[in-house]
Amino acid sequence: MSLKTLTRDTFNEIFEANSDRYIEEWKEFLRFPSLGAFEEHKQDCRNCAAWVVAQLSAMGLDASILETGHQPAAYAHRPAKPGQKTVLFYGHYDVQPADPLEDWTTPPFEPDLREGRLYARGAEDNKGQVMYVLKAIETLLQNDALNVGLKILIEGEEECGSQGLNASVDQWHDTLNADILMVCDTGTVRSGIPTITMGLRGVIFMALTLTGPDHDLHSGVHGGVCPNPAQGIAELLASLHDSRGHIAIEGYCDDITEPSERALELANEIALDPNEYRTDTGAPPVGGERDFTARERIGFRPTIEINGVHSGFGGQGTKTIIPSVAEAKISSRLVPGQDPDRCLNLIRKHLEAHTPPGLQLAIWDCMSAGPGFRLDPNSELISQAHNVLTELSPHKPAYVWEGASVPIVSALAQAAKAEPLLIGFGHDEDRIHAPNESFSIEQFRQGFLYACLFLSQL
Amino acid sequence: MSLKTLTRDTFNEIFEANSDRYIEEWKEFLRFPSLGAFEEHKQDCRNCAAWVVAQLSAMGLDASILETGHQPAAYAHRPAKPGQKTVLFYGHYDVQPADPLEDWTTPPFEPDLREGRLYARGAEDNKGQVMYVLKAIETLLQNDALNVGLKILIEGEEECGSQGLNASVDQWHDTLNADILMVCDTGTVRSGIPTITMGLRGVIFMALTLTGPDHDLHSGVHGGVCPNPAQGIAELLASLHDSRGHIAIEGYCDDITEPSERALELANEIALDPNEYRTDTGAPPVGGERDFTARERIGFRPTIEINGVHSGFGGQGTKTIIPSVAEAKISSRLVPGQDPDRCLNLIRKHLEAHTPPGLQLAIWDCMSAGPGFRLDPNSELISQAHNVLTELSPHKPAYVWEGASVPIVSALAQAAKAEPLLIGFGHDEDRIHAPNESFSIEQFRQGFLYACLFLSQL
Repeated sequence: MSLKTLTRDTFNEIFEANSDRYIEEWKEFLRFPSLGAFEEHKQDCRNCAAWVVAQLSAMGLDASILETGHQPAAYAHRPAKPGQKTVLFYGHYDVQPADPLEDWTTPPFEPDLREGRLYARGAEDNKGQVMYVLKAIETLLQNDALNVGLKILIEGEEECGSQGLNASVDQWHDTLNADILMVCDTGTVRSGIPTITMGLRGVIFMALTLTGPDHDLHSGVHGGVCPNPAQGIAELLASLHDSRGHIAIEGYCDDITEPSERALELANEIALDPNEYRTDTGAPPVGGERDFTARERIGFRPTIEINGVHSGFGGQGTKTIIPSVAEAKISSRLVPGQDPDRCLNLIRKHLEAHTPPGLQLAIWDCMSAGPGFRLDPNSELISQAHNVLTELSPHKPAYVWEGASVPIVSALAQAAKAEPLLIGFGHDEDRIHAPNESFSIEQFRQGFLYACLFLSQL
Repeated sequence: MSLKTLTRDTFNEIFEANSDRYIEEWKEFLRFPSLGAFEEHKQDCRNCAAWVVAQLSAMGLDASILETGHQPAAYAHRPAKPGQKTVLFYGHYDVQPADPLEDWTTPPFEPDLREGRLYARGAEDNKGQVMYVLKAIETLLQNDALNVGLKILIEGEEECGSQGLNASVDQWHDTLNADILMVCDTGTVRSGIPTITMGLRGVIFMALTLTGPDHDLHSGVHGGVCPNPAQGIAELLASLHDSRGHIAIEGYCDDITEPSERALELANEIALDPNEYRTDTGAPPVGGERDFTARERIGFRPTIEINGVHSGFGGQGTKTIIPSVAEAKISSRLVPGQDPDRCLNLIRKHLEAHTPPGLQLAIWDCMSAGPGFRLDPNSELISQAHNVLTELSPHKPAYVWEGASVPIVSALAQAAKAEPLLIGFGHDEDRIHAPNESFSIEQFRQGFLYACLFLSQL
């Protein structure tokens, strides 16, 4: 069977004939509670990586565990024949924490298929999207229809900053060297509209603690005298933004690379629909900086987000205390031009300068997961991918500058000397990072067809 | 045995001879997890009230349960003979929640005597202080040395606003009618210095919820577009104070009754020692309004305290979300002149006016537990008590305008038509409302001697 005979319809028939098996294997993948950030899930992560290696081996690839010093990665290699390009496919098997557990309709690590959607932590992000690519590669290998060299790297720490991989990639030029870095950890701008992700934001993390008294105090006896860390952390966190939603940290936005006219135009082509946004999320899209469109705020502007804040009493009834301690977790999305380490330092300095009197500030878990990046809408690879997506769907493909981060992508692209290509089939309704995450069989099928067509046409 | 033969030394001998039994009974009292705010502790509260009734009956008093519609109170009565005054002794058997449980050295409801201190939730507040008064009354009754009529009211909802009692006192004029309202729910300004509490602040409570998206969102995908309730609640809570620590709610302080010159002078007589404060609490006394002394801030100024704030992720590692919801619990201490209902409304209006765009504010558990009040330093009762305290201790008694609230005291004083007398032996190191609450045997002894002397000299 030659390359030319495999059309969209053929791939679709293969999908229909094999989808039950694909779903069973996808469920197996989802049953691993592979929370890469947690020491107590170390063995779950290793088991999950081993399962991926077994999958890759069964496809006939030379596969192995790649040690990173932290959670291991699964790796496979098929050498390119002379004249062939090499594709490095990158994905991750680790998942976000599943709490609050009580909000899940079915348990997060017991995948459940309901009304055409598979529900589980990682159903989309990223196990679901990894699975359709692997099944596409399996299909192409079985049909001798893969005309490129192939490297596959499925890591286990994407959700917590890819520390192990980040520390290793510089020594792995040969392991990773490729022409194209294929990533499927992204989504579509609207359900059914195939989407090329043209940029990702970088991300840095920080945790902070404000300590007041060394034990909770009676709020009557001490109110007005003892500094209150709950009030202090509110003031400190509020100081991060001005009244128009801009980041209020001095110098934070100085080095931002402004987007090109063409990029701004393409990004604003599909405006974010406030009604659709409210339906999907329950909230109006009125967060962030007042002076930019929603697409611009997501694609071209940095944010500082409070991911959590906790202090004092939160149960039923009343407890009139001045809490001893307040904690917050913050993260910041960065755009090209912003240096992650510089930004971490600027936040630290700002927090130190704005700590209310009498409270002790501690900053911990400071981490940069890498800078943001943007692709060129005029590149040949982007055109090629655009053609495949045009073939796949009746809808005109969209270009999107994403707000999310796949922090390792910059580092991998540099180490592999490869051009990134970010096409994925996620959508808001998948509720990634939240309870009841899911991915539809239709999204899986779209991703499978895209991967089959794109890889077979290289 | 006549009244005149019972001196301080005699009472001390009685204490020494009986202290083991006193401590055993005090421990019995502490074993009830009498958390008045919690439906699931309803039976524990009823059992605890019944135990108090049994104690009072064993002392020869006519004692019974007094139903309030909520947690029941224990009540006893000894009629006054002609010409005798009547003392209404008020205390409470309910206690604050014990969380965080893991911070207790020994379990909160298994009282443990270590190095002269009894550790348990309620060891001081208020079971310990109630016990020494009951043991003093027992002593006086056994020695026929009580020359007054007596009413005893030990309620079960002080820590959550005395709702049942507040709703009942207006119908209980006969039950409560007295000359002196004796309360021992207060402390000493410094360890060993007997202290008359000359005022208490009122207190109101409120809980609030800010809702953004209807589920946690990915902070990259949605950061800069979806309003963040964790950031919103920080801004909202920060808006309650200005940069000099003053309450920033319009009109909140308009009706404050300023203290007399004499009160200001007496209150500032024993300045709060910053070093001692730091040793006791672990924090410097630099909270609240910059323009008043610490004693003035505690005694004569209102506060709004954040008792707790909770939103989003707080565990180990990172979770890059925009939380769906943020909650806070706040309470406000009021001074004479401030109307609790008016203050609740002003806070509500302020919160509504300052809610950031796109977030939904809900306010719940709004409650007033009563206004603040002040006593006259020149009254005869205060002089009488001052003399007893002078006899009790080598240290000059102190006058203190307290920051805490015993919200029912105003209502009780009014219903009983009685003059309040607030003398207690608590101290900062007792850590009331916090883990490892305790009360020393020496404090108990001081309280016992005071109650014996004061009541026997009426």
